[in-house]
Amino acid sequence: MRIENSKNSYPIPTWVHESVIYQIFPDRFAIGKGKSVKDKEKLYASRCGKIVDWNVPPVRKEKASHVMEFYGGDLWGIAEKLDYLKDLGVNAIYTNPIFLSPTNHKYDAIDYLKIDPQFGGEKAFKYYVKKAKEENFRLILDGVFNHLSIENPWFKKALKGDRKHISKFAIHENGHRAWNAFKSLPEWHLEEVEVMEYILSVVKHYLHQGVDGWRLDVGYDLGYVNNALITQTAKSISMEKYVVTETWNYPSDWGMVDGIMNYHFRNSVIAYLKNEFDNLADALQQAYNDTTNIHGCWNMLDSHDTERIATVIPDKQLRKLGIVLQFTYPGVPVVYYGTEIGMEGGNDPECRATMRWNEDEWDKELREFYKKLINIRKTETALKVGTFEVLKKEPLVFYRRTAHVFDSVIVAVNKSETKQVTISIPDGRILAGTCFTDLFTGEEFWVTGGIMRFEVPSKGFRILKMTNRTRNGYNQYKRIY
Amino acid sequence: MRIENSKNSYPIPTWVHESVIYQIFPDRFAIGKGKSVKDKEKLYASRCGKIVDWNVPPVRKEKASHVMEFYGGDLWGIAEKLDYLKDLGVNAIYTNPIFLSPTNHKYDAIDYLKIDPQFGGEKAFKYYVKKAKEENFRLILDGVFNHLSIENPWFKKALKGDRKHISKFAIHENGHRAWNAFKSLPEWHLEEVEVMEYILSVVKHYLHQGVDGWRLDVGYDLGYVNNALITQTAKSISMEKYVVTETWNYPSDWGMVDGIMNYHFRNSVIAYLKNEFDNLADALQQAYNDTTNIHGCWNMLDSHDTERIATVIPDKQLRKLGIVLQFTYPGVPVVYYGTEIGMEGGNDPECRATMRWNEDEWDKELREFYKKLINIRKTETALKVGTFEVLKKEPLVFYRRTAHVFDSVIVAVNKSETKQVTISIPDGRILAGTCFTDLFTGEEFWVTGGIMRFEVPSKGFRILKMTNRTRNGYNQYKRIY
Repeated sequence: MRIENSKNSYPIPTWVHESVIYQIFPDRFAIGKGKSVKDKEKLYASRCGKIVDWNVPPVRKEKASHVMEFYGGDLWGIAEKLDYLKDLGVNAIYTNPIFLSPTNHKYDAIDYLKIDPQFGGEKAFKYYVKKAKEENFRLILDGVFNHLSIENPWFKKALKGDRKHISKFAIHENGHRAWNAFKSLPEWHLEEVEVMEYILSVVKHYLHQGVDGWRLDVGYDLGYVNNALITQTAKSISMEKYVVTETWNYPSDWGMVDGIMNYHFRNSVIAYLKNEFDNLADALQQAYNDTTNIHGCWNMLDSHDTERIATVIPDKQLRKLGIVLQFTYPGVPVVYYGTEIGMEGGNDPECRATMRWNEDEWDKELREFYKKLINIRKTETALKVGTFEVLKKEPLVFYRRTAHVFDSVIVAVNKSETKQVTISIPDGRILAGTCFTDLFTGEEFWVTGGIMRFEVPSKGFRILKMTNRTRNGYNQYKRIY
Repeated sequence: MRIENSKNSYPIPTWVHESVIYQIFPDRFAIGKGKSVKDKEKLYASRCGKIVDWNVPPVRKEKASHVMEFYGGDLWGIAEKLDYLKDLGVNAIYTNPIFLSPTNHKYDAIDYLKIDPQFGGEKAFKYYVKKAKEENFRLILDGVFNHLSIENPWFKKALKGDRKHISKFAIHENGHRAWNAFKSLPEWHLEEVEVMEYILSVVKHYLHQGVDGWRLDVGYDLGYVNNALITQTAKSISMEKYVVTETWNYPSDWGMVDGIMNYHFRNSVIAYLKNEFDNLADALQQAYNDTTNIHGCWNMLDSHDTERIATVIPDKQLRKLGIVLQFTYPGVPVVYYGTEIGMEGGNDPECRATMRWNEDEWDKELREFYKKLINIRKTETALKVGTFEVLKKEPLVFYRRTAHVFDSVIVAVNKSETKQVTISIPDGRILAGTCFTDLFTGEEFWVTGGIMRFEVPSKGFRILKMTNRTRNGYNQYKRIY
């Protein structure tokens, strides 16, 4: 069934509205317990993996053999770096796959119910969950349920013609159906009762252990029915469980999940900042209007599947405008590890380089900028659940409105020369003489007759918050909300 | 501003959807630390209170002097009884007022920032919050912000003409404006900046201490603006904070809070069960249609302000139908302490008798019935967030629908003789040959052509859950959700 009104779609878990997610590619973030990859060499060598020193950048190899190159990162390492994440201000962690799998990316599971020993196994996972929960982090796992590894025992038996397993997959005369036609990633026959029961048991298994949500890999391949079924299963455990699915399209029409990965946001913002797209305002407005679960979608500028934003937009001032949009457009900001310190990187595998822990390599000013925006995003109700209403297309100015006028926020982003802007705020609750304060500079601007004027510096931005002022006991908002 | 669509009202916190609230009148629930009221006599006698033995029923006295009769219950006592509540299955606690106040009901605060020593003071409060949080209870306090006690120091000064405080209240030539014209309950001038700043600081103070929400006393007196302002303030701390307001009217048009106390539900159900009202179906359907925040409203059958339901509906079989509706109509079930063991009681103060801890006095069968319903309410997604769609008016049969067909629940309530019922289920996702299972009896009923037949026993009910059956790998729902 399509979702016709909010009363018959699942509500997005409230905690999602106040989350800023940090995405971690586990092999590349941190090695725990004071070890180096050399100390762990056996774990890789015994499984045809090659170890690489932390400071050597990953490069693409022929026949994709780079997917067998390991840097040693693990769940122990993430657990040890929670203080770093707390200091940054993020409060949810999305980890790329962690289940038993031959590759460094682990998008090809051998066994979904085993945590890969290369990442520390069950013991590290339990420790990671415990520590993260103690620090109030929400945890999101990567569920790769469309396909699996050719090393999966059921698949191996099926290939040999075992009737007990053959119909779990699509075994053909000359091979098997595989994701994106990559033979190493055979697809499940998800319609088989036994298969989907197994997948759902995996979904439940980790949610029962305290995991808060799933990111579903290649959600478009799972299709509407399986996205819906996984979401139904998650919600049957608790309405607080969160399901977000991977799509690379326009964000609408995925109301059966809590949200999608909004690559439409990423691609339109980047094209705009590169002067390749002149109508960001309309694109963002229409996507907002069309997407019932927009507040549960992910706002990313990069991921393990894209070039890093510092590589795409080297001009930091311009890049910051994209980051401002990431934190002020409806949806959940997802920061890809290292992007907050200015790490660069081209397409996979370059974007999967190891996290820099030597502060001398950090862009500290950029990191402070992220901290400030993360804090604003966690504080301002309008940024969590407000509307998105374009007030001016160029420079882009938009309004975030909630049920109460005091929450109101106006955001302006200007990619060209300094502009004087006059806007009409279409909200009759905003009284004449109301002040909007710039949350970065402290500057104040005043509304009269529903009109406000302010300057936006060249390659600059403003995040303006409505601030009620009373004078000697006079409060013009005493009977207004 | 009126709330025109779900995008500009605050989302109801997700945890509310899976809560069953237990209401406690603190003086009457439990005395902690092994004490009797005699051991605490000084706390009452020094403040003009009279102590009464736990087993003596409260009775109305002239000039309402019964409000100065104390039984000794306190927050220590509640903290010690959390195991009882866990066993019952409730997961949220609403306590009647606990702030410093002369009366046993404490709806007249002297100081909102002090926990009354009669209830154990700050120390007991901190202990109660800590213990309850450890056991994952959500805590809701009673905020009485329209009026206060005549013993409040500011009010006493104002009465004497102190210009620093006089305009905080409505001091008249011959007295002062008071709630419901009861002189002991002077009303605040909530429009005064200093007053509302104080009230909001109280709201924040307790939310910052881990309290999850507020029930606002006489919400209709606070009015739209102050309900909205308190909610805005609560949400500015976290979207997870919950505000529910007291009204005694039709539930619609209070979208500025998360929900209201749904006395319309109570009164229509009771009138129906007493054969005084022949159109419960339409009343419940219209209220659902009109109330945007219905899933955040409270479904009560009694409270500290009403006769207990066992007194109103002595026929237990009939009463159970009301209880079934309380747990299956959209909204949060609120169980008034003792009602689950069959306690009786007329209007205030009789409905505020002490909790019976001697199990010999319990209606154990009734308590098991509550436990079963509480468990069902916490398990079934459709009961948490589903629609309400009347399928048949008499006997009353209704449908609860969510975004996924597998959640579907049908409820039937029959107050007269045994009836054979045939219903049409207006949901094209429900396929022919689908089974609905009675969650109490295990009986199964089958749908064909969108039609289902079943019997509802005299003064009986059914809660029927859609259950998908597969046969030898055939699953007719493999491409349906």
